Amino acid sequence: MEINQYWLSRRTIRRYDSTRHVSDEMLDEMLLQASHAPTTGNMQWYSVIVTRDEDAKKALSPAHFGQPQVTGCDVVLTFCADLNRFTRWCEERDADPCYDNLQSLMAAFLDTALLAQQFNTIAEMNGLGVCMLGTTTYNAGEIAEVLDLPALVVPLITLTVGYPAEEPADSGRLPVESFVHRGVYRQYTREDIDRLYAEKEERDDSRRFVAENAKSTLAQVFTDVRYPRANNELFSAKFLDYIRMSGFKI
Amino acid sequence: MEINQYWLSRRTIRRYDSTRHVSDEMLDEMLLQASHAPTTGNMQWYSVIVTRDEDAKKALSPAHFGQPQVTGCDVVLTFCADLNRFTRWCEERDADPCYDNLQSLMAAFLDTALLAQQFNTIAEMNGLGVCMLGTTTYNAGEIAEVLDLPALVVPLITLTVGYPAEEPADSGRLPVESFVHRGVYRQYTREDIDRLYAEKEERDDSRRFVAENAKSTLAQVFTDVRYPRANNELFSAKFLDYIRMSGFKI
Repeated sequence: MEINQYWLSRRTIRRYDSTRHVSDEMLDEMLLQASHAPTTGNMQWYSVIVTRDEDAKKALSPAHFGQPQVTGCDVVLTFCADLNRFTRWCEERDADPCYDNLQSLMAAFLDTALLAQQFNTIAEMNGLGVCMLGTTTYNAGEIAEVLDLPALVVPLITLTVGYPAEEPADSGRLPVESFVHRGVYRQYTREDIDRLYAEKEERDDSRRFVAENAKSTLAQVFTDVRYPRANNELFSAKFLDYIRMSGFKI
Repeated sequence: MEINQYWLSRRTIRRYDSTRHVSDEMLDEMLLQASHAPTTGNMQWYSVIVTRDEDAKKALSPAHFGQPQVTGCDVVLTFCADLNRFTRWCEERDADPCYDNLQSLMAAFLDTALLAQQFNTIAEMNGLGVCMLGTTTYNAGEIAEVLDLPALVVPLITLTVGYPAEEPADSGRLPVESFVHRGVYRQYTREDIDRLYAEKEERDDSRRFVAENAKSTLAQVFTDVRYPRANNELFSAKFLDYIRMSGFKI
């Protein structure tokens, strides 16, 4: 496939071919390549936990709300913001580590996300299918327990990886003018919102979501069903607790 | 260049050819391609502010501590976590928005970082040079003022972009075994730290940093000079203030 076709045609893959496996050698090679993504101060404040064992996948599954790709994939990768390794290095080198703060955690979040995204692209370009799970920060404490994470390590992004067993349709994106601002941010008028969200709202799958959930607008599917206030607030409090328990002064 | 060679040979570019320019059309095409990176619930909680004007670059420069690539590049892109647009959509669609919380901000941080990294890769594969600035969250308030950001929008990553005018040496990375854990996280022993950091510590540039700063270890260059405790704590407090002032309940 042409590279320029890849960017627009890539798809999230949730179903995998159970007969084909990703070797440790291939995984390590892709992770090495991904590690050349930008990283703050070349410090690489991340770790990746590789889960292949079926029982371990089952143990992770509830933390991801039972999404079937966790147990159905070949390999689960949990990308963690990691200030522990760098702190350990400082301790062994007569240096006073000071990375238990919000800015350091933000830098580690970014390092980790950039690594995960670069890995995602590399894996897809090698013919693998990947699903990025947004549920990792919801149940960070439960995931940390399964993976035996020490203090100063925060699970951030989970990728399920394997050879694809489906060819999903394009989920679509907003037009580029919806998120690009020239010079300064322009606030969105009612007319802007109508124009920029029109294509998304008119998709067949969007109309189906609205009907199936008995809502009157697509936005209500997000606010009332998929990302409701009570869940957002509950999991925000849980995540902040985990970060603090993990040793960060926030 | 072979794709598989690109991953390991990519470099951060800080000096740009002032005679060559990236058109708006090319920029929009690359941003459109990048927007097909994974995004939580397909919500695209990000915005990108494009800065081309020389005065505007000068206005951004102090927030990035005067790093010369901000005024020396062709285009500055500020990637922002954006809960404002989605909230505006909800307001116009009779839905009760509830995205002023930590989990929503985390999802927006991830969306934004994945977009920025995908853009970085696409731009580099198109022959452009990019520098990712880690200073964006240090002075988020000052950047927000220059770019006129509304509430619920947090600047996260800045990329300076242009055609390269340098060919920097490889900055190196830790061996892959340093950040990959199989099954569960293994804590690092003294011997692990010695082995995993040996190559980094023995680099010529590392030895030069230690000598120039009159330190006894490379780790001390990080803890005492580059990322010292007082700075980390100051900028952590500033960033938390900005997030709260921007409307997030954290």
